[in-house]
Amino acid sequence: MKFNFLYPSIQKDIDEVENELKLAVSDTDAETISEAALHLLTAGGKRIRPMFVCLTSRLGDEVDPSLSRSAATAIELIHMASIVHDDVVDDASLRRGRPTIKSIWGNHIAMYTGDFLFAKSLEYMTRVKNEKAHLLLSQVTVELAVGEIEQIKDKYNFEQSVRSYLRRIKRKTALLIAASCGLGGIIADLPEKLDDKLYLFGYYVGMAFQITDDILDFSQDEKKLGKPAGEDLSQGNVTLPVFFAMQDPLLRKRIERVTETTSKEEIDYLVEAIRSSGAIEKSEQVATDYLNKAAGILGEFGHRKEVKPLRQIIKMLDKRDY
Amino acid sequence: MKFNFLYPSIQKDIDEVENELKLAVSDTDAETISEAALHLLTAGGKRIRPMFVCLTSRLGDEVDPSLSRSAATAIELIHMASIVHDDVVDDASLRRGRPTIKSIWGNHIAMYTGDFLFAKSLEYMTRVKNEKAHLLLSQVTVELAVGEIEQIKDKYNFEQSVRSYLRRIKRKTALLIAASCGLGGIIADLPEKLDDKLYLFGYYVGMAFQITDDILDFSQDEKKLGKPAGEDLSQGNVTLPVFFAMQDPLLRKRIERVTETTSKEEIDYLVEAIRSSGAIEKSEQVATDYLNKAAGILGEFGHRKEVKPLRQIIKMLDKRDY
Repeated sequence: MKFNFLYPSIQKDIDEVENELKLAVSDTDAETISEAALHLLTAGGKRIRPMFVCLTSRLGDEVDPSLSRSAATAIELIHMASIVHDDVVDDASLRRGRPTIKSIWGNHIAMYTGDFLFAKSLEYMTRVKNEKAHLLLSQVTVELAVGEIEQIKDKYNFEQSVRSYLRRIKRKTALLIAASCGLGGIIADLPEKLDDKLYLFGYYVGMAFQITDDILDFSQDEKKLGKPAGEDLSQGNVTLPVFFAMQDPLLRKRIERVTETTSKEEIDYLVEAIRSSGAIEKSEQVATDYLNKAAGILGEFGHRKEVKPLRQIIKMLDKRDY
Repeated sequence: MKFNFLYPSIQKDIDEVENELKLAVSDTDAETISEAALHLLTAGGKRIRPMFVCLTSRLGDEVDPSLSRSAATAIELIHMASIVHDDVVDDASLRRGRPTIKSIWGNHIAMYTGDFLFAKSLEYMTRVKNEKAHLLLSQVTVELAVGEIEQIKDKYNFEQSVRSYLRRIKRKTALLIAASCGLGGIIADLPEKLDDKLYLFGYYVGMAFQITDDILDFSQDEKKLGKPAGEDLSQGNVTLPVFFAMQDPLLRKRIERVTETTSKEEIDYLVEAIRSSGAIEKSEQVATDYLNKAAGILGEFGHRKEVKPLRQIIKMLDKRDY
């Protein structure tokens, strides 16, 4: 993905990370893994995690770009691994408009392709010779696995609290984006206090990012989504728009009846009902609130030019429709 | 497992690693993961990987035992993770006489429990602040995933070469034991040449270890195995005894007909036929040859007392029946 507001030097970082990712997934004589991983890689993605690593690392004075690229590659490989395992559990057949690894190669290959990507990420992290960075990433990956288990446990549970939803998306998405920003700060050798601020910045951005993804699952059509609308709901993932929609007692009753065997027609009806219930707008407001908190933190980094693209990303992410 | 020839100080290391493993799997508020991982942990295991880390690290002059324990815990967590994912693919219902995680909690929980254990291993490795150690472990985990994919690809392929079998068990088992020994050397701060020797020592031991496991699948009864005899064959894993048995053209024809739907009676017949074909003895000889090579390497470490337990383990592993 191209971000035309980025400085050429940052765009170069992002391009190099993309090359590095291709190298990483090709660097094996196990052809099936390579094909499967390349299939996922070439389907694209926003690469916002690598972008945050590269951008935040620029806040330091003299940063070796090869370091931030290695960390960015490691982070994206972890994200890719979690996507592959996610698709196994969600039994998803499409992602970004293309068949998932699981649907082409089956569950077992998908599981080991995920393991491979995860293991490969360690090779890249090894290049970042910083204990704090390693610890940060290891803790976040533990939380990722825990978040996925929680998601399984909470499926089709319409009694769960918004709080448990927020905890789940924190583990599933926000912490890895937080770690991306925190890592940048560590690589930039910023004072620990600022690393922590960047981490918190990433956390807020990550929460908004996942809430927006959860909104798009309802607000977009299949063509733009690259997968059927309402897929989260049909798979029993209770997301923020659903919580807001359930404030209407009649709609709640109908949503609560959703199970694995609910028909596509019923899901289509519910998607429409949720769209017109005001739940989308309320959810968008929550996402915007998180982004505003993120913007507030940037205020503490002064007016140096390296902060500008971070502000621009926040604007771009607000009410995004892609 | 108690090894009564070990020095008390090493036995203490092993006991502490066991405690550390319990802590590692309990250190989450995700109860399902904790229960599942504890279920696997308390089923026991030989813990030979931690033992090798602890023993080889003693070859150094002044080693901080907390370092070798952290590395040993990390290695065993990786091994546990790979076991859990392995059981998903093998569709195994029993391991060490107990139901597998996959059979109790299902494939999805098993997948994420493996991910959790793997991620948790990184936390422990982070304590070993040594780049070479990190690189070694990350490369071995990549090979582990690749080995598992190869195993899937080669299932029920009776045309494959012994060479591809050896490469598979190298990746699946030998490299992690090699890394255990190499890590010990790195922690002991031995000259790089000796680290490499220890790695090779572990590789030979690991090859023998897996070949012996593959033999036991045929030579032992279900009670002692903790799972049905001949399970590897019925799952299409072509192991060394099968290669030797296939030297008999008639037996080969019958073995080649094995598929996923082959009856238990036919597998029982083939197990008997393989047992009486001389394949077990020939395979044992290959394992012994590997162990002899391992013993040869120990010669280069002189006569210091720390080498003795390594020699004793080799003796103990030769023709083991457990």
